Amino acid sequence: MSQTTRTEAFSDGVLAIAITLLVLDLHVPVRAALEGSLAHTLAHDGWPTYAAYVTSFLVIGIIWVNHHGVFELVDKVDRVTLFLNLMLLMTVVAIPFTTALMAEYLTDEGHDARTAALVYSAVMFAMSVAFASLYSYVARHPAQLAEGVDPVAVRRSIVRFSVVGLLLYLATMVVALFSAQACLIAHFAIAVYYCFQQIRPAGLRRPDSRRARWPRRAA
Amino acid sequence: MSQTTRTEAFSDGVLAIAITLLVLDLHVPVRAALEGSLAHTLAHDGWPTYAAYVTSFLVIGIIWVNHHGVFELVDKVDRVTLFLNLMLLMTVVAIPFTTALMAEYLTDEGHDARTAALVYSAVMFAMSVAFASLYSYVARHPAQLAEGVDPVAVRRSIVRFSVVGLLLYLATMVVALFSAQACLIAHFAIAVYYCFQQIRPAGLRRPDSRRARWPRRAA
Amino acid sequence: MSQTTRTEAFSDGVLAIAITLLVLDLHVPVRAALEGSLAHTLAHDGWPTYAAYVTSFLVIGIIWVNHHGVFELVDKVDRVTLFLNLMLLMTVVAIPFTTALMAEYLTDEGHDARTAALVYSAVMFAMSVAFASLYSYVARHPAQLAEGVDPVAVRRSIVRFSVVGLLLYLATMVVALFSAQACLIAHFAIAVYYCFQQIRPAGLRRPDSRRARWPRRAA
Amino acid sequence: MSQTTRTEAFSDGVLAIAITLLVLDLHVPVRAALEGSLAHTLAHDGWPTYAAYVTSFLVIGIIWVNHHGVFELVDKVDRVTLFLNLMLLMTVVAIPFTTALMAEYLTDEGHDARTAALVYSAVMFAMSVAFASLYSYVARHPAQLAEGVDPVAVRRSIVRFSVVGLLLYLATMVVALFSAQACLIAHFAIAVYYCFQQIRPAGLRRPDSRRARWPRRAA
Repeated sequence: MSQTTRTEAFSDGVLAIAITLLVLDLHVPVRAALEGSLAHTLAHDGWPTYAAYVTSFLVIGIIWVNHHGVFELVDKVDRVTLFLNLMLLMTVVAIPFTTALMAEYLTDEGHDARTAALVYSAVMFAMSVAFASLYSYVARHPAQLAEGVDPVAVRRSIVRFSVVGLLLYLATMVVALFSAQACLIAHFAIAVYYCFQQIRPAGLRRPDSRRARWPRRAA
Repeated sequence: MSQTTRTEAFSDGVLAIAITLLVLDLHVPVRAALEGSLAHTLAHDGWPTYAAYVTSFLVIGIIWVNHHGVFELVDKVDRVTLFLNLMLLMTVVAIPFTTALMAEYLTDEGHDARTAALVYSAVMFAMSVAFASLYSYVARHPAQLAEGVDPVAVRRSIVRFSVVGLLLYLATMVVALFSAQACLIAHFAIAVYYCFQQIRPAGLRRPDSRRARWPRRAA
Repeated sequence: MSQTTRTEAFSDGVLAIAITLLVLDLHVPVRAALEGSLAHTLAHDGWPTYAAYVTSFLVIGIIWVNHHGVFELVDKVDRVTLFLNLMLLMTVVAIPFTTALMAEYLTDEGHDARTAALVYSAVMFAMSVAFASLYSYVARHPAQLAEGVDPVAVRRSIVRFSVVGLLLYLATMVVALFSAQACLIAHFAIAVYYCFQQIRPAGLRRPDSRRARWPRRAA
Repeated sequence: MSQTTRTEAFSDGVLAIAITLLVLDLHVPVRAALEGSLAHTLAHDGWPTYAAYVTSFLVIGIIWVNHHGVFELVDKVDRVTLFLNLMLLMTVVAIPFTTALMAEYLTDEGHDARTAALVYSAVMFAMSVAFASLYSYVARHPAQLAEGVDPVAVRRSIVRFSVVGLLLYLATMVVALFSAQACLIAHFAIAVYYCFQQIRPAGLRRPDSRRARWPRRAA
C-alpha cells in the first residue's frame, strides 16, 4: 500500500473506532438500583446522554468527510503531514471522553456544567486547530498535491476550508461560559450545517487516469 | 481511494466494531460476590445475556451483508448519501447499548422488561428507516448507480428490499408491548430469515470490466 | 470492492478488534484499595490475567492466519459461506469474555476454576466447529474456488486442516474437567504448535495472473 | 488480497484500535462523588492521566509509522515474520493497560509509582525487542524483500533502525528506578524525537512499476 493510502486507512480506522466508542457513553441503568420505572429513568435521566451522543456522532462523521476531502488532494505524505494528522487524531480520540463528561454534567445547576461544556468545546477547538494546520501545510506544499489539483485554488481555499471552523469552535467556547445546554445545541447546529454545506476544496480536478479507473454510468 | 470505496471501508469498520463491542455486554461474575456455583450463575443468570448477544450479532451481521448489497449498486456517493449512511450507522452503533438493556431487564416481571424490548425494537425500526431512506435515495438517483445496473429494476426493488424490513421491525414494537421474550425471539427469527433469504436487489448486472478483474474458475 | 475482499476485510476488522479488546481484561489495581505493594499485587494476583491474555492473543492470531489461508482459496462467496463465516466470528468475538472468565477463576480452589476452563474450551471448540464447517463447505464447492486451486487437493486437506483442530479442542474440554491450569497450558501449547506448523492447504497454486501482479524479487 | 497487504491491514487495525482505546483511560469524575469543583478535579487529579494519554498516543503513532517503514521493504511474509509481527502487536495492545497503570500511580509518593513506571518501560522495551527481531529477520532474508530494495543497505541499517530503540527503552527502565515522572518525560521525549527524526531504512528504492502506479505531480 502507498503511504497515502495507508495513512487514510489508519485515520479511517481511528475515526471509525472513536465514533463507535461513543456507545460506551450510553449506560444501562442497573436493575437493582432503579428508582421508579425504567421508562421514566431512560427518559428523564438519559436525555443529556442521548443529546451528547447524537451531537458527537455527527461531529466525528463530519470530521471523517472533511478528512477525506483533504486527502483527496494529497499524493505524497511527509513526516510533518503524518505528525499533524496524528495531532488531529489525538483530539478526535478524546471526543468520547468529553462527550461523557458533557452528558454527566449537562444538567448540573452550578458551574460544573459550564466547565464540562468548556472542556468539550476546547477539545473541538483543538481539533479545528489541528485540522487547519494540516490543511494549510498540505495546501502550501504543492509538491505533495495529487495530479490535476490546482495549487493556487487550494491555497486560496485555506480560509474558507479551515479558518471558518476555527472561529465557529472558538465561539462555542464563549457560549460555554454562559450555558452548557446552549453550547451543546451550538455544536449540534454546526454539525448539521456542515452536513449540508459544500466544503469541498475548490482546486480539485480529478486526474484523467483516475476518471478512467472509476467508470461513470453512461447517460 | 475513491469516495465510494472509502465510505464502504468506513462503514465496514463501524459495523465490525459495533458487532465486536457486543462482547462487552457479556459480564464475568465477580468472584468475591458469587452466590452458589459459577456454573449455576452462568446458566441461570446469564442466558438473557447470551440470547441477546446471539440475536444482535446476527442482526448486525445481516445489516453488514445488506449494506454491501446497496453499495454494490453505487458508483458515486453525494452529500445526501453520506448523511443517510451516517444516520444508519448512528442507529447500528447504538445496538450494543440496547442489547445490554434488553439483557439486563429481560427477566424482569414488571413492565420494565417490555420497556427495554420496546427501546430495542425502536432502535431497530430507526435503523430500518435509515436503511430504507438510503436505499430509496440511491435507487431514485440513476446518476449515482454503477455501470451495468438497471435503474428501473432497482427502483422496482425498493418495496421488496426496504419496506419489508420497515414492517417487520414495526411489528416487533407491537410484540414488545406484550412480551419482551417473545420480542427477542421475533428479532432472532427475522435475522435468521434474512440470513437465508435472497434479498439481493434485482437490477444488478456486474459490469464486464469487473467480471474481467475478478476471474472465475474455468469450468 | 468484491464480495470476497469485503468479507476478508470485515473479518479482519472483527479479528483485529477482538484481539485488541483482550487488553480490557488487564485490570489496573485501584490505588485506594491496594493491599501491600503494587509490585506484589501485580505479580501475585495478576499472573492468571497475563497468562490468559498471552494465550488468547496467540489463539486469535492463529485464527487470523488460518482464516486468511481459507480465503486465499476462495474466489466467490455465497450466502452459506457468509453465514458460516459469521458463526465463526461470533465465537471469536466471545473470546475476550471467556478469557476474562478464565483469568478471574483460574486460581479458585473449588470447581469454579474448572467450570471457567470448560466454558473457555467449549467456545474454542465451537470456534473449531465453525471453522471446520466453513472450510468443508468451501472445499466441497469447487465453483467458489479461485483460479489455479486444485479442488481435489483441497477436498483431501479437509481432515488435516480442520478435523485436527476439532479433536485438539475437544481434548482441552476433557482436560478442563481435571485442571483449569493444565487446560490453559494446553491451549497455549496448541497455539504455539499452530504458529510454527505449516497448515497451508495443499491445493493452492497461485494463479498466474496474480503472480504477475505481486512481483517477486529476482534471484 | 496478498498476504503482505493483509498483514499490513490487520496490523494497522490493531494499532488503530489500541491507540483509540487509550481514551478509555480518561475517566469522567462521578458527579455524586465530586469533592470541590469539576474544574479543580480535572486539573488537579486529571493531569497524570492526560500526560500518560498524550505520551502513549505519540508512542503508538510512531510505532505505526515505523511499522509501515518495515513493511514497505517486504514483498512476501513467511510464518516467522507473521509470528514476530504478532509478538510486536501483543506488546502494543498492552500499552493502554500500562498507560492506565502509569496514570493511576504517577503521583504516588512511595515506590508504587516507580513500579508502575518500570512496568510501562518494560512493555515498551519488550515492544522494541519484538520490533528489532522483526526488522532483523526481514533484513536478513533477502528473498522476502520487495523489488528494488537493496539487501546490503537494509542489513546495514539494522543497528540504526532497531538497536537505538532497544537502548533508549532500556534507559527508560533505569530512569523508572529513580522517578516515575522523569520516566514519563523520557518516553515523551523519545516519541517526539522519533516524530521528526528520519528513520526510514536506507536501502529503499521504490520499484519502477510502483512509481508508475502512484503518479507524482509534474513539477
